[in-house]
Amino acid sequence: MELLFLGTGAGVPGKVRNVTSIAFKMLEERGAIWLFDCGEATQHQILHTSLKPRRLEKIFITHLHGDHIFGLPGLLGSRSFQGGETPITIYGPEGIAAYVHTSLTVSGTRLKYPIEIVEISEGVIFEDSQMKVEAAVLDHALPCFGYRMTEKDKSGVLLVDKLKADKVPPGPIYKKIKNGETVQLEDGRIISGDQYVGPSQKGRVVTILGDTRPCENAVQLSLHADLLVHEATFNRESVTMAHDYFHSTTAQAAMTAKKAEVKRLCLTHISSRYNGEEAEQLRLEAEEIFSPVTLAHDFLEVPIVQS
Amino acid sequence: MELLFLGTGAGVPGKVRNVTSIAFKMLEERGAIWLFDCGEATQHQILHTSLKPRRLEKIFITHLHGDHIFGLPGLLGSRSFQGGETPITIYGPEGIAAYVHTSLTVSGTRLKYPIEIVEISEGVIFEDSQMKVEAAVLDHALPCFGYRMTEKDKSGVLLVDKLKADKVPPGPIYKKIKNGETVQLEDGRIISGDQYVGPSQKGRVVTILGDTRPCENAVQLSLHADLLVHEATFNRESVTMAHDYFHSTTAQAAMTAKKAEVKRLCLTHISSRYNGEEAEQLRLEAEEIFSPVTLAHDFLEVPIVQS
Repeated sequence: MELLFLGTGAGVPGKVRNVTSIAFKMLEERGAIWLFDCGEATQHQILHTSLKPRRLEKIFITHLHGDHIFGLPGLLGSRSFQGGETPITIYGPEGIAAYVHTSLTVSGTRLKYPIEIVEISEGVIFEDSQMKVEAAVLDHALPCFGYRMTEKDKSGVLLVDKLKADKVPPGPIYKKIKNGETVQLEDGRIISGDQYVGPSQKGRVVTILGDTRPCENAVQLSLHADLLVHEATFNRESVTMAHDYFHSTTAQAAMTAKKAEVKRLCLTHISSRYNGEEAEQLRLEAEEIFSPVTLAHDFLEVPIVQS
Repeated sequence: MELLFLGTGAGVPGKVRNVTSIAFKMLEERGAIWLFDCGEATQHQILHTSLKPRRLEKIFITHLHGDHIFGLPGLLGSRSFQGGETPITIYGPEGIAAYVHTSLTVSGTRLKYPIEIVEISEGVIFEDSQMKVEAAVLDHALPCFGYRMTEKDKSGVLLVDKLKADKVPPGPIYKKIKNGETVQLEDGRIISGDQYVGPSQKGRVVTILGDTRPCENAVQLSLHADLLVHEATFNRESVTMAHDYFHSTTAQAAMTAKKAEVKRLCLTHISSRYNGEEAEQLRLEAEEIFSPVTLAHDFLEVPIVQS
């Protein structure tokens, strides 16, 4: 389970940072990739990675600004051209369906796989046996969502070797033991399932926020997350500019991470005015408030570790 | 007056060739750049050139396939973000207005300059004192135009030094002489304007065709052009495939150049199946039928020379 940053710039593409996109790789866990935002040339960035577009299962759009969506029609079309056949679900604010449908229709793009477009509102927008995704509205110039992905806890494995060593004969009773029930064996012994089940594994939580000013929903979505991805368009000093453009400073992002007591903060959506050492300075500003902080760059891969 | 190839690939972007876009630089002549097609990441390609998006005056779209238009909304938005203020006119087939308007509206992109979108039909689509642009429909899966740009002939300069040497006094009579008229001077001499005007300079003709099978309009648009840009998606052998996908082979492109008696042929829209030496082979195939042939690559600049 890793995040692969495909674009970490703000507003317009630059030579160093492309516009926003993040791949959430769950190849071992799910055989799938989820994409968060799809700025122009996201498919070009993918060419320089090992990502296979046919592995894409879901695309989450935080908001409809061009630097977050203008790569979407091209990526969908190329995935089809390259043989992608499995369905894709796209989640995003109202308007995303009109944009995708118009772009595909006008350009005569016929996809060889089904797409479903879900215009979301706040709450749980997806849940299955493995993952839950919650969305909440942030504070930006356009309706903009943050997403909290929660991996379900995995129950412990049945310790078959131990059962055999204790001469517990296999049968339907194993299922009850696996569920942790207390059972009576045919020989009269009473055993507790807990003794024959390994430790459960707690699911990981990763939160990816769209562009935003500091706000309560940003904190709520991030509570105790193992990894929080937060924009930091401006440096600590540029509070007024950040406010005027509905963005956050490094310090504001760090303060949200601190309030939410996350395990790690990753800053992205970095204005092209900050380069080289200046960018490192952004990280240090945030670390004065919260630690540890990673400053994302294009093609950075961050493992999501249960802390 | 030069063409700068920004994307020379077919269908989907690759590591070597981006999808289609060509800049027609008229910086000395007009202080302007015209763009032909705008595939995804055209603005990214521009970052690696000396082109200034604020110099863009007109954008001509050949057809609405995604690899020819998906870079347009992003380029328009970034040009505004970077301070572009002069108007842009976009010419293209029916549907281009809906695509541009939907993309800009949904994304909340407010341009700081006016755009005019002209959904064209065949004929002269633009003309001023310097340039004429004609469009005609080609043979492609979607309505697709080719464009013929004709630079107006420049009349010769008035040879003022010669007039002075011959003691022709300055005055309103100079205008008549410049126009080549025969005039009588006050001292009774009769002189012919032709003797006091330098040679006129013939305008150049460049033809840029969209994706197409061989067709009569391709020849007509190209007649005696100084430079013809023609797609060559497939090699000589792949005639059936070219037909099925509404494209041309190298040999078909060369045959059009030959029929039209152009001065130079430039091949572009090259499938990613041809790389390195295979691509050079494409050029050689065409040169067996017509010469000279240039095989375009991304960032190639071709001067347009009056032959």
